[in-house]
Amino acid sequence: MLEQVEQLYEEKKIGELKALLNEMNPADIAQLLEELDNEKTRVFFFRMLTKENAADTFVEFDSDTQEDLIRAFSDTELRAVLDEIYVDDAADIIEEMPATLVKRILRNTDPETRLAINTILKYPEDSAGSIMTPEFVDLKKDMTVEDAFKRIRRQGVDKETIYTCYVTDASRHLIGVTTVKELLLHEYEDVISDFMETNVISINTLEDQENASILMSKYDFLAMPVVDMENRLVGIITIDDVIDVIQEENTEDIQKMNAMLPTEKVYLKTSVFETWRSRFPWLLLLMVSATFTGSIITTFEDKLATLTILTAFIPMLMDTGGNSGGQASVTVIRAMSLSEIEFRDYFRVVWKEIRVGFACGLSLAAVNFIKIWVVDRMLFKNDEITLLIDLAICLTLVVEIVFAKFIGCSLPMLAKKIGFDPAVMSSPFITTIVDAVSLLVFFGISTAVIPQLH
Amino acid sequence: MLEQVEQLYEEKKIGELKALLNEMNPADIAQLLEELDNEKTRVFFFRMLTKENAADTFVEFDSDTQEDLIRAFSDTELRAVLDEIYVDDAADIIEEMPATLVKRILRNTDPETRLAINTILKYPEDSAGSIMTPEFVDLKKDMTVEDAFKRIRRQGVDKETIYTCYVTDASRHLIGVTTVKELLLHEYEDVISDFMETNVISINTLEDQENASILMSKYDFLAMPVVDMENRLVGIITIDDVIDVIQEENTEDIQKMNAMLPTEKVYLKTSVFETWRSRFPWLLLLMVSATFTGSIITTFEDKLATLTILTAFIPMLMDTGGNSGGQASVTVIRAMSLSEIEFRDYFRVVWKEIRVGFACGLSLAAVNFIKIWVVDRMLFKNDEITLLIDLAICLTLVVEIVFAKFIGCSLPMLAKKIGFDPAVMSSPFITTIVDAVSLLVFFGISTAVIPQLH
Repeated sequence: MLEQVEQLYEEKKIGELKALLNEMNPADIAQLLEELDNEKTRVFFFRMLTKENAADTFVEFDSDTQEDLIRAFSDTELRAVLDEIYVDDAADIIEEMPATLVKRILRNTDPETRLAINTILKYPEDSAGSIMTPEFVDLKKDMTVEDAFKRIRRQGVDKETIYTCYVTDASRHLIGVTTVKELLLHEYEDVISDFMETNVISINTLEDQENASILMSKYDFLAMPVVDMENRLVGIITIDDVIDVIQEENTEDIQKMNAMLPTEKVYLKTSVFETWRSRFPWLLLLMVSATFTGSIITTFEDKLATLTILTAFIPMLMDTGGNSGGQASVTVIRAMSLSEIEFRDYFRVVWKEIRVGFACGLSLAAVNFIKIWVVDRMLFKNDEITLLIDLAICLTLVVEIVFAKFIGCSLPMLAKKIGFDPAVMSSPFITTIVDAVSLLVFFGISTAVIPQLH
Repeated sequence: MLEQVEQLYEEKKIGELKALLNEMNPADIAQLLEELDNEKTRVFFFRMLTKENAADTFVEFDSDTQEDLIRAFSDTELRAVLDEIYVDDAADIIEEMPATLVKRILRNTDPETRLAINTILKYPEDSAGSIMTPEFVDLKKDMTVEDAFKRIRRQGVDKETIYTCYVTDASRHLIGVTTVKELLLHEYEDVISDFMETNVISINTLEDQENASILMSKYDFLAMPVVDMENRLVGIITIDDVIDVIQEENTEDIQKMNAMLPTEKVYLKTSVFETWRSRFPWLLLLMVSATFTGSIITTFEDKLATLTILTAFIPMLMDTGGNSGGQASVTVIRAMSLSEIEFRDYFRVVWKEIRVGFACGLSLAAVNFIKIWVVDRMLFKNDEITLLIDLAICLTLVVEIVFAKFIGCSLPMLAKKIGFDPAVMSSPFITTIVDAVSLLVFFGISTAVIPQLH
């Protein structure tokens, strides 16, 4: 596609180029224009788009491209784009721009939009208010279906969605909700208050955006009303924004689960310094914690020197414990973020994980017992290995895995209970704890079981 | 809420109870009824629901509850529920039922629906066809807006969504798409072919459902057409199902990234055996791989015996290497699944990770160098530690972290290139490789740098 477009451009077939570009979906136009190396060509191509396509394409660009384009725009061009885009998209764009451009953008929006943008920008990051749009269709309860359609036809062109319509009273309190589907299935003379849904599920401006995504996927909504403290309707959240929230929250959870501070930026756009900054703190913390594990080894140095073969099993014991704990913690964190389990399920979860721990521990210990005896002792003729050493290792496996599963499921649930983010109680953190405990268990059991260490 | 309902039930205020239940949102009714311990009460409550609420509530139950209810239903009741639910939901329900119930369910659906359900069930799991519904509104290109609304009013009541309407020709080929919003914004006498979008983005029945979710969130669609090999429209995928797909795929990725085989079941509904089965294979594989790390230690046993203090730093080196590699792999896997990077970005990614690796390695080595000297040597008076030992440890840190970042970003990208799932090339797997390499590097550097080991 890029080649085709560039060829038309070189052959100066501007009419064809214009037709080709405008036929594409804005998301694809944006992708194509971002692949162009030359910024001047990009501006030239962008100017070929129809007013509507230009605006729809503009919101799809990443913020660097948006910034470049705004700098290249005349005030008239800027105003044309801003007139067409939705208020919530405008607010998103402004959030990423440097202060000088923000001023220029706000100067080129009409006063009403400017006020709306400023309202959205004032809500805390990640709140429902910050992702809502004030552009919705509101109806009155005594309207007929015919009135409603007239209003939708008049107001609808500028609204992000028209399919869910909210019914408000004179002081803008939310009193009902209906959909275009309902309206279409009723007669023209039916009155809205007779069939509107009065049990309206809404969200407060200051609530976490994650709640909006949970509620909307639970109830299969296309849009959700956002109300202020007095239950006045101030905006709506649309499903496309909720999908973005879901993906963002998932990325954030995955980052936290793997010992990184969350970053919102796209990977290739993040600088080396920013990436370092999100990874270094956890690496440092975990490195320091791991030195405690090291000091446990130091304490048993003498015994390890007596029976150096034991050292060879430390990596296997540490890795298996860490992996077992990681499995449990990740499963529990995910189940919590999908609202599948709550704190009141704690004992059921622990009971389950302990049984899974025994199942995994016993099966791995059995495999390991045979492997050590057949491979290490008989095949590689490692005479240092005795049946008691083999037993000590396998006993450690069972104990550490049960412990790892217990800690792995407990810490995230307890963290959430006391108001921390459960996702940070994940594999790397749990690995560090399990490592230390595994070594203590290993040395404890070895000392008790193996005669040479007495 | 549960208490209120149970009290009304005990006081035999059936009228009030019925009103209260039917006023709630079906997703909430389902949640409430699932919390009831007594199955008989649940059936009793369920029978109080209006026909529409009953069907909407039924699809929200988990499959065990659905199975119990179907067993309690008379054929008439079963038919009433089946008549009201959408074909794609019916197919989802049937997939989870035992064979005897499937027969009974299919016997109680009308022939047309039965055919549609069977068609959906025949598509491979996780294909676009398996999550589509054949219930959509189709228009013809010479219809006027008025004709279209008439058709929507007539057909719409049974359709999962009416907002996106597809235009097909006589042989059901998809030739255009329009929305109710477009229809509402045009005059009643306008002809659809004059304003319909002809550049229709569709998906093939056999494509992966994940592609549907990627396309729908890219283009902000509420519904997406599914076509067969001859471009005939056979169904649509709606946004609510796509959100479920997104969450499922995220859960699957998270499970794979943490050494588990993916399971689709809700955590508390998964048996201990099933959980064991999803966790054991990876634990076993990683345990066996970790024994190689152990054998590296065995090779250096003599040198470790000469300078036992070195053993104390093994956990820290192993954990830090594993965590560093995990960070890189998880970041790259996530960026790939959000389509932010592709294989052609490989060298950019590697170059970036190597620089981040140096930044993390040097900063951690610096902290560690001082910590070992000040804390271990001066504070704890561990005279075995020399400047050269300290240097060997910190040099190992830098080398292993750069290597971990390199392997961590490379393996997932290469895995995807050759057609494997990148998510399994994640932390636990990479940890195992990095562990072995870290030890080799550690022993190599130590032997070269520390005179006692010469």
